[in-house]
Amino acid sequence: MTMTISTIGILGGGQLGRMLALAGYPLGLRFHIYDPAPDAPAGHLAEHIAAPYDDMAALEHFGACVDVVTYEFENVPVMTARALERFVPVLPPPTALEAAQDRLVEKRFFQTLGIPTAPFAPVDDRVSFEAALAQIGLPAVLKTRRLGYDGKGQAFLHDATAAKTAWNELGGQPLILEGYVAFARELSVLAVRGHDGAIACYPLVENLHRGGILRRSIAPAPALDPEVQALAETYARRILEALKYIGVLAIELFEIKHPPRDMEGQATQPRLMASEMAPRVHNSGHWTIEGAVTSQFENHLRAISGVPLGITDACGYAAMVNIIGELPDVAALLALPHTHLHLYGKAARPGRKIGHVTVCADTREELAGRLARVEEIVEQ
Amino acid sequence: MTMTISTIGILGGGQLGRMLALAGYPLGLRFHIYDPAPDAPAGHLAEHIAAPYDDMAALEHFGACVDVVTYEFENVPVMTARALERFVPVLPPPTALEAAQDRLVEKRFFQTLGIPTAPFAPVDDRVSFEAALAQIGLPAVLKTRRLGYDGKGQAFLHDATAAKTAWNELGGQPLILEGYVAFARELSVLAVRGHDGAIACYPLVENLHRGGILRRSIAPAPALDPEVQALAETYARRILEALKYIGVLAIELFEIKHPPRDMEGQATQPRLMASEMAPRVHNSGHWTIEGAVTSQFENHLRAISGVPLGITDACGYAAMVNIIGELPDVAALLALPHTHLHLYGKAARPGRKIGHVTVCADTREELAGRLARVEEIVEQ
Repeated sequence: MTMTISTIGILGGGQLGRMLALAGYPLGLRFHIYDPAPDAPAGHLAEHIAAPYDDMAALEHFGACVDVVTYEFENVPVMTARALERFVPVLPPPTALEAAQDRLVEKRFFQTLGIPTAPFAPVDDRVSFEAALAQIGLPAVLKTRRLGYDGKGQAFLHDATAAKTAWNELGGQPLILEGYVAFARELSVLAVRGHDGAIACYPLVENLHRGGILRRSIAPAPALDPEVQALAETYARRILEALKYIGVLAIELFEIKHPPRDMEGQATQPRLMASEMAPRVHNSGHWTIEGAVTSQFENHLRAISGVPLGITDACGYAAMVNIIGELPDVAALLALPHTHLHLYGKAARPGRKIGHVTVCADTREELAGRLARVEEIVEQ
Repeated sequence: MTMTISTIGILGGGQLGRMLALAGYPLGLRFHIYDPAPDAPAGHLAEHIAAPYDDMAALEHFGACVDVVTYEFENVPVMTARALERFVPVLPPPTALEAAQDRLVEKRFFQTLGIPTAPFAPVDDRVSFEAALAQIGLPAVLKTRRLGYDGKGQAFLHDATAAKTAWNELGGQPLILEGYVAFARELSVLAVRGHDGAIACYPLVENLHRGGILRRSIAPAPALDPEVQALAETYARRILEALKYIGVLAIELFEIKHPPRDMEGQATQPRLMASEMAPRVHNSGHWTIEGAVTSQFENHLRAISGVPLGITDACGYAAMVNIIGELPDVAALLALPHTHLHLYGKAARPGRKIGHVTVCADTREELAGRLARVEEIVEQ
């Protein structure tokens, strides 16, 4: 038996598409990238169709060039994915896109699967905003239901004045109000499901955000209770199976270390809450390129190509640091041992992810030392 | 400081060029490939100029597109490299190409550096063939001085009849007669020298050839005397410094485990003899992609880009198995744990290297078990 999938189409040509292609060439795959931006990073190393997501003729041509279509960007219009399905399999299934693109749909989906979330309420107008505030209380977070990323389209409501300001800024579009969760840390789980229904999960990762942007991930997450790993895997499995998902899925989670307890000593909050999911490879999984037996990129491609999944075990300890805004001193970074540079071929711009660095080590102590040296060079 | 080299030109677009590009995109590099073959494997993922090696206009255009030129194929005409030098730096220096392209020049070069080789003599005509046979004795190997690879252009002379047959087959072109060395095994050393003169060597590798084609490499070479590693590094250093080399160089070596001794007990043969060198990344270094901290491909690019070299330590144990002729059962291979597939995007053809597999392990025993399972699937 040989692989029957030989050409992959990717909707979106950013760094995730680029790293998918880099992982896929060694598997003998070829790539066509569909991205409206003429300078899309993945376009440097694959066939690139630069056309709008609603250009039906370009989509049909794209579909005819490839054996399967996937996406690296969760805001690809669902209509685009649906249109392509008429010509070629689209994986993960577009229902996953639908579930992930709207924060309200996503939260309700978690709810139906018994996956805890922060309290939430839909906000469509001022009346429902007031009702939501009354229901959820403060502090809370007001978010656009669609198209938010890297902290954009969100406002933190610490008091009534902030609520008013936030309404003035964000009101007039579909919103969601989420209760603020005093979480100990943010974790994420990357899971992959193959054609045959096999599921594998990577070790949980601890993520550090600042200004709404992921700065750093540490893998495996330090001092993690194995029960928390198991719980996260249970949630991932429910989502993957409910969606008949094929490919890599990321779920961002809040860990609550010391849940408040009622008078009988029962925890009144779960230990883990799902924050959001991404139906694609994910920034918090970049460490897997050097830090796991099989990278998230390779496993996504294995899944959508219908070949067996690779092992998701970590090899020692790894930390991933995003390079944001401008290029650091590359020669200084490359002089650090056990440090792996990944640049995306993107122009520098404030707040833009233009690369990442992964450091690997055999012990936590070694990792901490190496990470400190990287963070001296990669200013954030 | 940031890298001033951003676009690399590669002469030759085979699997070595392809793996260079795959290693270089994460460093933020871009690639232009120069290869006469329109379907060159590296052309799938980089800009490709398909023109003959003597097309001066195409070469000038190529030179204008890139910041530095390197080569992945040691039979690139020296004239091509020299022509490009007028427009752009060419690294490793073309003198290394000259030294490696002619087996006689190469052996004499080793000699001047005090690096042992098998006994050899030039063969230009029947008279010098007879003289060489008288000097070297039998068994011996008659080889073309130029353009041999994968065992092509060679004949093993076990007796006078074989010598006659070989002459009929190969005579009439510049040849070299080499004494047969009863070596215990073939080793190779990969060394890299940076812009600043820093040199790093990978652990020696044990290579298994069959029919003149490399079948398997094991890294680090099992049961290796540290003195042999040190000796190989000394030889590599002499070559790199003599050539003012920049980039990765491979040297194939014969190890003689029990050298014959004279009446006073002194060894009459050295423990290591240089067989040949390749001024480029090398098949016996493919294991470094997963099996070393920094791959040979990344280190070659670091060297020619003028940034610090990466660590050449092995991570545990690795074995590399070439996929020759036809595609094995890819799904079965991918089902094996700790097994990494590398296909080159080449059509199957008898005797052609179309990919390789690397297996990694923490112990020699684990490696042996995993290698056995790979070799059941990859028939050679």
